[in-house]
Amino acid sequence: MKERCDLLIRNIACLVTAAGGKRGPLSNPKWEDLGVVENGAVAIRRGKFVAVGTTAEVESRISITPKTKTLSGRGRLVLPGFIDPHTHFLFVGTREEEYAMRVEGVDYLEIRRRGGGIRKTVRAFRAASDEELLDAGRRRLDSFLAYGTTTVEGKSGYGLTTEEEIRALRLMAQLNDTHPIEVVPTFLGAHEIPEEYEGRTGDYVRLVIDEMIPRVRGLARFCDVFCEKGVFEIEESRAILDAGKRHGLLPKLHAEEFVSIGGGELAAEVGAVSADHLLAVTEEGCAAMARSGTIAILLPGTAIGLAKRVFADVERMRRNALPIALATDCNPGSSFTESMSVVLSLACSLEGLTLPEAILGATRNAAAALGLLDSIGTIEVGKKADCILLRATHPAAIPYRFGTNLVETVVKNGLPIRRRRRPNLVGPTV
Amino acid sequence: MKERCDLLIRNIACLVTAAGGKRGPLSNPKWEDLGVVENGAVAIRRGKFVAVGTTAEVESRISITPKTKTLSGRGRLVLPGFIDPHTHFLFVGTREEEYAMRVEGVDYLEIRRRGGGIRKTVRAFRAASDEELLDAGRRRLDSFLAYGTTTVEGKSGYGLTTEEEIRALRLMAQLNDTHPIEVVPTFLGAHEIPEEYEGRTGDYVRLVIDEMIPRVRGLARFCDVFCEKGVFEIEESRAILDAGKRHGLLPKLHAEEFVSIGGGELAAEVGAVSADHLLAVTEEGCAAMARSGTIAILLPGTAIGLAKRVFADVERMRRNALPIALATDCNPGSSFTESMSVVLSLACSLEGLTLPEAILGATRNAAAALGLLDSIGTIEVGKKADCILLRATHPAAIPYRFGTNLVETVVKNGLPIRRRRRPNLVGPTV
Repeated sequence: MKERCDLLIRNIACLVTAAGGKRGPLSNPKWEDLGVVENGAVAIRRGKFVAVGTTAEVESRISITPKTKTLSGRGRLVLPGFIDPHTHFLFVGTREEEYAMRVEGVDYLEIRRRGGGIRKTVRAFRAASDEELLDAGRRRLDSFLAYGTTTVEGKSGYGLTTEEEIRALRLMAQLNDTHPIEVVPTFLGAHEIPEEYEGRTGDYVRLVIDEMIPRVRGLARFCDVFCEKGVFEIEESRAILDAGKRHGLLPKLHAEEFVSIGGGELAAEVGAVSADHLLAVTEEGCAAMARSGTIAILLPGTAIGLAKRVFADVERMRRNALPIALATDCNPGSSFTESMSVVLSLACSLEGLTLPEAILGATRNAAAALGLLDSIGTIEVGKKADCILLRATHPAAIPYRFGTNLVETVVKNGLPIRRRRRPNLVGPTV
Repeated sequence: MKERCDLLIRNIACLVTAAGGKRGPLSNPKWEDLGVVENGAVAIRRGKFVAVGTTAEVESRISITPKTKTLSGRGRLVLPGFIDPHTHFLFVGTREEEYAMRVEGVDYLEIRRRGGGIRKTVRAFRAASDEELLDAGRRRLDSFLAYGTTTVEGKSGYGLTTEEEIRALRLMAQLNDTHPIEVVPTFLGAHEIPEEYEGRTGDYVRLVIDEMIPRVRGLARFCDVFCEKGVFEIEESRAILDAGKRHGLLPKLHAEEFVSIGGGELAAEVGAVSADHLLAVTEEGCAAMARSGTIAILLPGTAIGLAKRVFADVERMRRNALPIALATDCNPGSSFTESMSVVLSLACSLEGLTLPEAILGATRNAAAALGLLDSIGTIEVGKKADCILLRATHPAAIPYRFGTNLVETVVKNGLPIRRRRRPNLVGPTV
């Protein structure tokens, strides 16, 4: 019997399923791993893909009923919805004046001394009402969606008290329930040492381990730490991640962003799902991560946000067969963007990722970096029907047409959400 | 008597007039040169600014009639419309597959051998109907406008025969007449040596000088040359620009993009309005340009389009008091974007421009680079009412929030054009 379907997208000029090659996250992917289908189609029923292939194949397998909605993919590129596996999107207050200072050469310690940095956002977060945070979060999720992202990881870490960290995770759960985007929550109590614990890092680490982690159990999927020289060092990071594991939180790690202190090795040792940033990761760190199945999440947006020409050593990751994912790192300090497309531009042009690496990095490997590759990240029968239609016919168009948004329609859980194509010209043209 | 007004924008959180400091284009601008007004307002009548200042000042000078339209600037940043002084926007056919090759390390000569490069776009241009070119041009201008650009320079140079070059300029004139954006036409017959003149550069230069230039008189404001080793060298470029001057075309120059051959000095010698690219410009070239009043137009988008980490030496330009403008270089080969905002992000974060340099580079100095600073480029009484409202309250937000579009309303010649704020959520949220 033929499968019924609610939504059929057919005659897709270029369908990128991201499902080619062997299963699972891929290192050193090739073009064939993109799973490109010309004149492709996807059929969706009850929020899942039920047929994927050429238009002829799909149409032979499904039955179209009067209730079937169809979309034309003519002249369009279709991809899995972008998955953004590293963001700090739930915040209020922006810090563009710090960006202006950085561009003029003022360093982070001086910015922090002047009342800026993460602690400024912590003060704003604590002072904000739930409504203000929800409103800011909702607007930001709208923007992610408009740029084609259908799943967003979101970290706590601007509360830095037990109650405020719980509040961040509860609000993210509320946003997840009320917004089309799926929000995957990460507990990041160890994002920064809060002002009131200045000089008492050990006390704060004990608070995270003894009080916060037991209480955020069930509210977060992951436990993350900003592991960096002078912030949370290796021993402290290990203790926090181990405590998280005991309470069912999967480990993730901000590792080797500025200085190499063994963050890659620690990520591997604790079996982290991902280690993120990695601008200073060593050969040994890469090798250990590859052995442990830890995904490298690169965040090239920080080159813009921090105004520094420092880029990941992608060749080192390739040599060690380390799968790479990409993320925006959306946050008000070091990388304020909701666009995975611009991240792909920076990744390909400035870090040297190939197109297959970048496309899989924003879809399939990003899903793996959230432990969700069974349900999202590729366009395959049985997976959630999250996909995007772009005004392009080749996947390279995404990074190539940098700084603009080619996404025309976002399909989330099988429901199409359209963007307006052109500005609204009010009055006669002149 | 009080001035009547058609459009009043008031209570602007941050009005950047770009009109501070001394008159004219500026080198080494400071924050005060941005001319920031808090709680600002602008009044517009018959397409021109008639009052600019604080809301109180402006309201005391104008009379509001029932026909006056008002816009609130609360929580908004207002700037002069962006001016993009270097584009090749009139083309058909994209070249993303070449971008994918470049990312994998294939060089331009190999891409050209495989049928790519500028000549591919020349073939597509020649094969396209007027309607196809107008349609592509119109869509691209819509995109420029959506990203806040109100004046676009556009170059010919994909025709490379006398008739096709004239066609390019005629079509740009037609777009200028029918689209809100003002298109400033530049003749660039010397963009590349066409296939049919391979090995006969001298013959092609004579065609440009003897036949094309006399015939494009009146259709173009500027004459430009792609002056580069192996393409049009110094002697040939000088001859073409001199011929242009004899026919009333102001000189511009693609100079010192890859190799230093004296393009900066030539620009100064011929009195070019601008010299563009300049990644390899010498100290002497900068000094000569500064003396001759030639503006440096930087095109940092080529770092993305060409996938090369090569950036302008901004410090050298500062030392020589050279005014800097910014442009997208929008073209299907080396830089495909219509967004001046992303260019500002690249300019500030990767080339090290300060915020005042970047903002004036996209407005006031860009107007000067088109010889149009008398009528556009700043928000001043008597100038054309071209301005943009952005969802931000600080000019640094533009480069800081990279890869996304903060522009909400574009006012062109006094007429407001609104962008839609959010994606259209079809059906219930899930």
